[in-house]
Amino acid sequence: MSFRATVLTLYPDMFPGTLGQALAGRALSQGTWDLQTVQIRDYATDRHRSVDDTPAGGGAGMVMRADVLAAALDANAGPDDPRPRLLMSPRGKPLTQKRVRALAEGPGVVIVCGRFEGVDQRVIDGRDLEEVSIGDYVLSGGEVAAQVVLDAVIRLLPGVMGNAESGETESFEDGLLEHPHYTRPAEWEGRTIPEVLTSGNHAKIGKWRRERAEELTRERRPDLLAPRKDDEGA
Amino acid sequence: MSFRATVLTLYPDMFPGTLGQALAGRALSQGTWDLQTVQIRDYATDRHRSVDDTPAGGGAGMVMRADVLAAALDANAGPDDPRPRLLMSPRGKPLTQKRVRALAEGPGVVIVCGRFEGVDQRVIDGRDLEEVSIGDYVLSGGEVAAQVVLDAVIRLLPGVMGNAESGETESFEDGLLEHPHYTRPAEWEGRTIPEVLTSGNHAKIGKWRRERAEELTRERRPDLLAPRKDDEGA
Repeated sequence: MSFRATVLTLYPDMFPGTLGQALAGRALSQGTWDLQTVQIRDYATDRHRSVDDTPAGGGAGMVMRADVLAAALDANAGPDDPRPRLLMSPRGKPLTQKRVRALAEGPGVVIVCGRFEGVDQRVIDGRDLEEVSIGDYVLSGGEVAAQVVLDAVIRLLPGVMGNAESGETESFEDGLLEHPHYTRPAEWEGRTIPEVLTSGNHAKIGKWRRERAEELTRERRPDLLAPRKDDEGA
Repeated sequence: MSFRATVLTLYPDMFPGTLGQALAGRALSQGTWDLQTVQIRDYATDRHRSVDDTPAGGGAGMVMRADVLAAALDANAGPDDPRPRLLMSPRGKPLTQKRVRALAEGPGVVIVCGRFEGVDQRVIDGRDLEEVSIGDYVLSGGEVAAQVVLDAVIRLLPGVMGNAESGETESFEDGLLEHPHYTRPAEWEGRTIPEVLTSGNHAKIGKWRRERAEELTRERRPDLLAPRKDDEGA
């Protein structure tokens, strides 16, 4: 059975977007995953089809209404739907490769793309939405963040990557950033490929790569080497 | 003068993608920013138009060639181009709202979208590419990551957001996650809006929001409250 993605958004035309080409696009046309987009506005109930309103207590921006979003969720991912329901939000738990892998092993995912200033807290509570953040910056909406989540997940689905090994020797999978890469030409602008890599000695190559990965991680991301408290249960 | 974005990719059709609609799309058609996409393959020199080759030292996947990528860069963002040159990569420095704001204040950005197993280290060194990561997970390519960077930057360009205040009271700008939001209806499924928000007492509302933001940050992201070593010069 294919991995089922349902995306709730005010901009369904943004999909499949980047997911319609290359690796994810081929997997989509081969039926490895499928994508349903839901226009949240179709569940508005007033004559203006409003999906947002001014924030209680005042302040800038608009807030997405609980009732409209809940109706859109209930019609497309009701209480019996086993898929996790994510809300893309800078307030969420940071997405990790571990969480990506867990999602890829499940039946699919429901993703709500926020827009405006935010989403009414009551629908987050009442529909048990899992707030997920793709990083410590603010986007104009959750659509591109949803594509990030789906791209990361889809490449791990069975049969999607040409070489299964690729998924296991890359950044984060062993807690380290990946070692540097080199390919032909052997010399470029006076820069050569490190000798060990052309030695044919696989033990030495493995050792060199491991050492460079550790060095790079210490230098750039010492936080990955210390056990992170917030990583439990991710 | 508008903010100039140049994106080097093997999939130029993925652009503008999500950036062609909503906030970023309007800003694009109004000339607030402009987008040039460069097909890296156009700079290949052999008859097969190869852009990648097998990794020196063996292993899975393919590596993007230094010579081809350098030629694409030199033709579109030469040594006199003042714009920062980013390479989207999980090995990079994590993107922060601070870095986003600095990019938005500059003349534009050149973004290289990696694909395959990685990019030859010599072009990263030789063309001074700044490796930037949007988060601790692995994508099938840098295209959707480039859209994340551009989306975050474009919304901060002068005149793009309807209400300037919106950019300053949101997650990360004051080192805290944002407080919860509520809007009409006043009651939904038995859930009401916290009384203080409808009190009209702005001092109390401000205090309540600040406290909720602090509480949420302590609960979900204690790392944001401790000064981060890797944040210097970000």
